[in-house]
Amino acid sequence: MKPTAAILSVGNEVLRGSVVNTNAAFLGRELSGFGFEVISHAVCADSQEAIRFRLGEMLRRVDLIMVMGGLGPTPDDVTREGIAAHFKVPLVFSAPQFRRLQKVYKRFGKRVPLLVKREAFYPENAKPLINRFGIALGFSIETGVKIVIALPGVPSELKNMYFDVVLPLLKKKYGDLFKSQKLIVRMAGISEPDVMKKLGKDFFDDSFDFGIYPSAGEIAIRILADKPEVLRRLKKKVATRLKDRIYAWDETPLSAAIGKILTRKRQTLAVAESCTGGLLASRVTALSGASVYFRGGVVAYHANVKMNLGVPAKLIKEHGEVSSQVAIQLAKSVRIRMGSSFGLGLTGVAGPGGGSSKKPVGLVYIGLASPDGTARAWKHVFWGERQQVQDKAATKALEYLWRKIR
Amino acid sequence: MKPTAAILSVGNEVLRGSVVNTNAAFLGRELSGFGFEVISHAVCADSQEAIRFRLGEMLRRVDLIMVMGGLGPTPDDVTREGIAAHFKVPLVFSAPQFRRLQKVYKRFGKRVPLLVKREAFYPENAKPLINRFGIALGFSIETGVKIVIALPGVPSELKNMYFDVVLPLLKKKYGDLFKSQKLIVRMAGISEPDVMKKLGKDFFDDSFDFGIYPSAGEIAIRILADKPEVLRRLKKKVATRLKDRIYAWDETPLSAAIGKILTRKRQTLAVAESCTGGLLASRVTALSGASVYFRGGVVAYHANVKMNLGVPAKLIKEHGEVSSQVAIQLAKSVRIRMGSSFGLGLTGVAGPGGGSSKKPVGLVYIGLASPDGTARAWKHVFWGERQQVQDKAATKALEYLWRKIR
Repeated sequence: MKPTAAILSVGNEVLRGSVVNTNAAFLGRELSGFGFEVISHAVCADSQEAIRFRLGEMLRRVDLIMVMGGLGPTPDDVTREGIAAHFKVPLVFSAPQFRRLQKVYKRFGKRVPLLVKREAFYPENAKPLINRFGIALGFSIETGVKIVIALPGVPSELKNMYFDVVLPLLKKKYGDLFKSQKLIVRMAGISEPDVMKKLGKDFFDDSFDFGIYPSAGEIAIRILADKPEVLRRLKKKVATRLKDRIYAWDETPLSAAIGKILTRKRQTLAVAESCTGGLLASRVTALSGASVYFRGGVVAYHANVKMNLGVPAKLIKEHGEVSSQVAIQLAKSVRIRMGSSFGLGLTGVAGPGGGSSKKPVGLVYIGLASPDGTARAWKHVFWGERQQVQDKAATKALEYLWRKIR
Repeated sequence: MKPTAAILSVGNEVLRGSVVNTNAAFLGRELSGFGFEVISHAVCADSQEAIRFRLGEMLRRVDLIMVMGGLGPTPDDVTREGIAAHFKVPLVFSAPQFRRLQKVYKRFGKRVPLLVKREAFYPENAKPLINRFGIALGFSIETGVKIVIALPGVPSELKNMYFDVVLPLLKKKYGDLFKSQKLIVRMAGISEPDVMKKLGKDFFDDSFDFGIYPSAGEIAIRILADKPEVLRRLKKKVATRLKDRIYAWDETPLSAAIGKILTRKRQTLAVAESCTGGLLASRVTALSGASVYFRGGVVAYHANVKMNLGVPAKLIKEHGEVSSQVAIQLAKSVRIRMGSSFGLGLTGVAGPGGGSSKKPVGLVYIGLASPDGTARAWKHVFWGERQQVQDKAATKALEYLWRKIR
């Protein structure tokens, strides 16, 4: 029998849809992966009553409750108070946490604002969880066999604190006894229906949980099973049936897989992008260590910028800014200008305006220039709104590079 | 007194975080905007028991319940059954819906699969809601003054059906009587505690709901009130107390506010960025219409690329790549190279590696070159991990530009 978990998000902004609750998805994934059966998510208002009500209900039903949000400094942040009220304990002041706050503010030559002083308080029956990634203190409460853990709602802080302080705490309490086994497969250049078709009906049975998650041109499969031998058997099947589309057996994004290969081969990349407007470069440089293999990029938005980069005016006039010829020339020019091994060039119509019957919204040409001086281009028409077209085009460009260098 | 609403998502994939619950955010936003007080979101498992339990609890507490997900054809889709079980009614077969299914499948030369036939059933006490955007039937149940509405979980179908069939139903039942008023304020260059301090304690009373939402250097305030005169009074106070930090009275992002001003003044922008690696250009070009005022950008990641752009090697050697001198030179050079009115130049240490005691992780210089040929730079040390440093630096750069041109 797996232990059970529930996730409680506190915040009017979540109830009113001002923010999308990515925290709940993150914790759902992590806790399931750890081995919990996550049986409930809930979102409640910034009110002590609402927090008490929901916490009480959850404590009757599950072993672990993750509460997030409402730990900030402003008066509407009442998670500390709500949880303390449920357990009928007062809030206590943490001198070490206050000294941490003083240090942080001192760096900026400031004293701790009165409001922020609230962030040094926690319920008397709790243990503070130090937040190395922000101001708000987290805390955990063990009550019999059950645990309540409160974390700040800022997604990056929540994520970092989960790995930094929550996971060690869960491991200590639960060990790896019931750790369910996980198999992750990441693929590019294949659609969700095609993955399912290639896996085939005979792939599936009741010995495992299967999830497939497409996002902007990449696909991840996550399989959970209780027995390692089940996963070994599945891994073989997946490798055989989807072989040439798989770029990682873990959560590595495509840009990181490319970075590893380029680093190993001591090769470099430069990009010239039009319709993606910096997104491709941004994807590559989102990873630390990119400076080893990424030389730089040009966002050639205006035609003049394309010409400055070395795309002949004649070529643009003859074929148009959105053409395979221009994509190739962008790739070649940026490769030479920036002295890189590879050059990627993108030009297209991201929309919603700017489309025509011949060159519709979503049309994107991707050029790739290689160390031997050759270059080629691919044509795609991506479906969706501006953001989706840009996302898919950037992913597709990375996919072509990956296919070339793997 | 506003009517209240709750949102119930059904699905193991949501509990396990395999998908992010954007549906809940969408409905939260729409229902709040319509005038409901959304007091609860919940996610429950694909199980009749879980649906009955949660539905029962919600029906005791709110006026409107939106249930989504679990209306598909596979055996784990049990929302129809769970809701019918709560009301102790059988499922009934809808001949018109089945004929619709037959038509859809006929288009592909197929007969309706046995599994899909389930999608023509709905609880006996419900009215079917035709889904013109997919296969699954929605339905609504009115019980006394309360309403339960079930919609498919596919985000595009949910969204389309909301406007197509749900909104007319709500309007018919509730009219526009209780439409709540909204005041939105967007600011840059001020912290959350400072906003609260400037608003002052006397700002707050019980006549309105107040929410403050910081994200990567920008801050939004959202105020909901039942009476327009309350909002008029608040708007005056906000304008007086926070005046020079406000860049929009609606949901406009900072990059769009800048775009509007540049378009109006017929001025243009080019950016040269190092540590943000394309993110700044990407923020600007995420908006359609950016081609009017955005010339292009350079991601000057490698020192050579900076030199190619016109940053003298001597300057880099003397002051280092991360220096105000280089930021200024990047801004000036990119402005001239790309022929734009303004140039932004960014150089910094995004981390996690590359920091030193003199130039720590988070240190970023932002240069701004103006049409008159002058340029200046600002120094910042941003806190957080790589992604946060990049986000905040990009926002801060936009803020300086906005302050200059507004």
